[in-house]
Amino acid sequence: MVQPSLTVRKEGVGRCTKVHRNFNLEKLRNGYLFTEIARRELQHLEKYPNAKVISLGIGDTTQPIPDNISMSMANSFVVQYARALATAEGYRGYGAEQGNKELRKAIAETHYKDVLVKESEVFVSDGSQCDIARLLLVLGSNVTVAAQDPSFPAYIDSSVIVGQAGDLEDEVGKYCNIEYLECGPGNNFFPDLKGTSRTDIIFFCSPNNPTGHAATQNQLEQLVEFARNNGSIIIFDSAYAAYVTDGCPRSIYEIPGAREVAIEISSFSKFSGFTGVRLGWTVVPEELLFSSGFPVINDFNRIICTCFNGASNIAQAGGLACLSSEGLEAVHSVVDYYKENTKILIDTLASLGIKVYGGINAPYVWAHFPGRKSWDVFAEILEKTHITTVPGSGFGPGGEEYIRISGFGHRESILEASRRLEALF
Amino acid sequence: MVQPSLTVRKEGVGRCTKVHRNFNLEKLRNGYLFTEIARRELQHLEKYPNAKVISLGIGDTTQPIPDNISMSMANSFVVQYARALATAEGYRGYGAEQGNKELRKAIAETHYKDVLVKESEVFVSDGSQCDIARLLLVLGSNVTVAAQDPSFPAYIDSSVIVGQAGDLEDEVGKYCNIEYLECGPGNNFFPDLKGTSRTDIIFFCSPNNPTGHAATQNQLEQLVEFARNNGSIIIFDSAYAAYVTDGCPRSIYEIPGAREVAIEISSFSKFSGFTGVRLGWTVVPEELLFSSGFPVINDFNRIICTCFNGASNIAQAGGLACLSSEGLEAVHSVVDYYKENTKILIDTLASLGIKVYGGINAPYVWAHFPGRKSWDVFAEILEKTHITTVPGSGFGPGGEEYIRISGFGHRESILEASRRLEALF
Repeated sequence: MVQPSLTVRKEGVGRCTKVHRNFNLEKLRNGYLFTEIARRELQHLEKYPNAKVISLGIGDTTQPIPDNISMSMANSFVVQYARALATAEGYRGYGAEQGNKELRKAIAETHYKDVLVKESEVFVSDGSQCDIARLLLVLGSNVTVAAQDPSFPAYIDSSVIVGQAGDLEDEVGKYCNIEYLECGPGNNFFPDLKGTSRTDIIFFCSPNNPTGHAATQNQLEQLVEFARNNGSIIIFDSAYAAYVTDGCPRSIYEIPGAREVAIEISSFSKFSGFTGVRLGWTVVPEELLFSSGFPVINDFNRIICTCFNGASNIAQAGGLACLSSEGLEAVHSVVDYYKENTKILIDTLASLGIKVYGGINAPYVWAHFPGRKSWDVFAEILEKTHITTVPGSGFGPGGEEYIRISGFGHRESILEASRRLEALF
Repeated sequence: MVQPSLTVRKEGVGRCTKVHRNFNLEKLRNGYLFTEIARRELQHLEKYPNAKVISLGIGDTTQPIPDNISMSMANSFVVQYARALATAEGYRGYGAEQGNKELRKAIAETHYKDVLVKESEVFVSDGSQCDIARLLLVLGSNVTVAAQDPSFPAYIDSSVIVGQAGDLEDEVGKYCNIEYLECGPGNNFFPDLKGTSRTDIIFFCSPNNPTGHAATQNQLEQLVEFARNNGSIIIFDSAYAAYVTDGCPRSIYEIPGAREVAIEISSFSKFSGFTGVRLGWTVVPEELLFSSGFPVINDFNRIICTCFNGASNIAQAGGLACLSSEGLEAVHSVVDYYKENTKILIDTLASLGIKVYGGINAPYVWAHFPGRKSWDVFAEILEKTHITTVPGSGFGPGGEEYIRISGFGHRESILEASRRLEALF
């Protein structure tokens, strides 16, 4: 991840065309958060070439993919693909744009075994971030959008790119026409829906990135009721569902009535260490309809066929291996490993008197530094401990005073990071 | 590819939200062309369950990936990825969003060895079709678009989805606000630029899909001059460049001045049989600037980071194997195989008195049936010979009276198809 990013130039050397820059992109004032974090990490390495930097910033998995999955992937790959691709009988070209039928079935059966999700409602993708953009293409620029504040920056950035946002108001750090759903310790990380305006789309992530809070059954019931009353569509991001331990819902479809108002996006990235393999999925229930009665699934399918062409067949073979019974067992052991990391970080920070949230149902710890700017805290930690984190304000104005610390890492790095933090605070 | 496609329902069973359907998607009158072809093939198979259908429709590669590449991919995969992913030292999470540095370098050196393309200008992707949509997201809905008629349907369909087109005019089968660049035998498959209105964007594919015509050096010089005079941006699709044999340019950057007006999209799909593996790339030169002087590459990079997250690391390992010297040798032998197929089809059709174009620098034969509707010819051939082709009008109104026949197939299928066509005509 850390490599020289593109030098941003306000004006290039060349010859101007007469094509105007897209004003939606002009509205994006800053670079993408995680690119910026990678840039700062690189800058730090240039300043301290011998520093042993520990990256608890970008939520990137670090643990090996369990041996039996990787071997199964290797075998699937070698037998079904590489070797098969080299035989006339075994060669396959384009797959179904919506994904391999067996994989769609396995996702429906594994992740939605207690709720109704049909195999035909599961669309395999190259990751949630890509599906967010495709969903916004489906919905167009004339819809209104709400998102949790703080939240994963791709929701709002992609909405701005597609043209759903107004200008950025510099003083408050918010885009006009976007409804920010404040989620903090004061409201148990769930927005006050009575004071929330209706929007067409509501992005909701649980367990949440960055706060690590998993919404309760009761909270999600309120959300679904709010969407039903308003005729809104929830885009529910369950990328961290595998980390839920305390009985909170792992899917929005556990809530009665959700099929008529919710799309769910999810991913193999944090579930099975597939960040670089690129594999995810989106569920669009048949009952989800536009105001005219036209099914949303039809338009999503059209976008998948026209603007995408299916996830890599090799990545899909790997995904199928993860969902076998041995695969699942191995995957859960890795999730447990990260959860233990997170617990170590929580204990360290708490012992230092730093108030922390999250970390129980998610691999992220959300640490509060009252009265301080989060970029300053980020910079101080990096400078003094060589640890990268993510400043909370990168997730929206509601993240100010916080930093997100990731539990993805080797155990020794996490223990070393804890020692360095203890020395700092 | 052939599997039951989604049943299109005009109205679904569920409960209407208050979200209006995106009017850009409403403008798309028909399903995506290749989905429709797959649907018709399936319908035919239901009618004739014992028919030996030969698919010369969807341009899907059929030949095994050469043994040394697939073994190299398998080794790369097993050694570098699957096994390495299973070791603490070898595990890699997210890669650079723009692609693996070595692969970007290999693409620049292999495909652009005689012209200047920097490694940093190459963005690795999951295929050209996906990059078309991302480029249109970069450019926004306020740009005007031109495309060859006939042309690959994703150009115009994606433009409609992004909001760059007006309504479809049913009588002529054209969208308002899109400039159709007529390319047929009458103008040597190159548009009359004197009669062409200025647009911001010009999609141009060479060797062309579907006509199989490769634009000459002189034609491309005219195109670049036209773009420079108008301050337009060319999106040049070179997905079939590996099939050029007669000295026509394989890259737009062979034309002086192109770096300031052209983006190039390309793919491993037809070059190395990677249709299902999903790997392509886009070149955005640093000198390409918006009217304000802002570099287009900066905005493309922003979209790549925000709305995409890089191609699968495993697919990228395979791509790198293709670009080794043994890989390239093997790949070229497969390309030669398809070209021989195409020659067999050309000879057959010509011997039957059917006028054919293309096929020399491309795996597609463009066959003319004067006075006939192309969907009728398609249906007749399918019904009487069990061969799927693609009706030319699916590529735009300029494709009426034509069908596209693909040279992708096993040799025996091509010979059998030739026999069946001889029996029909």
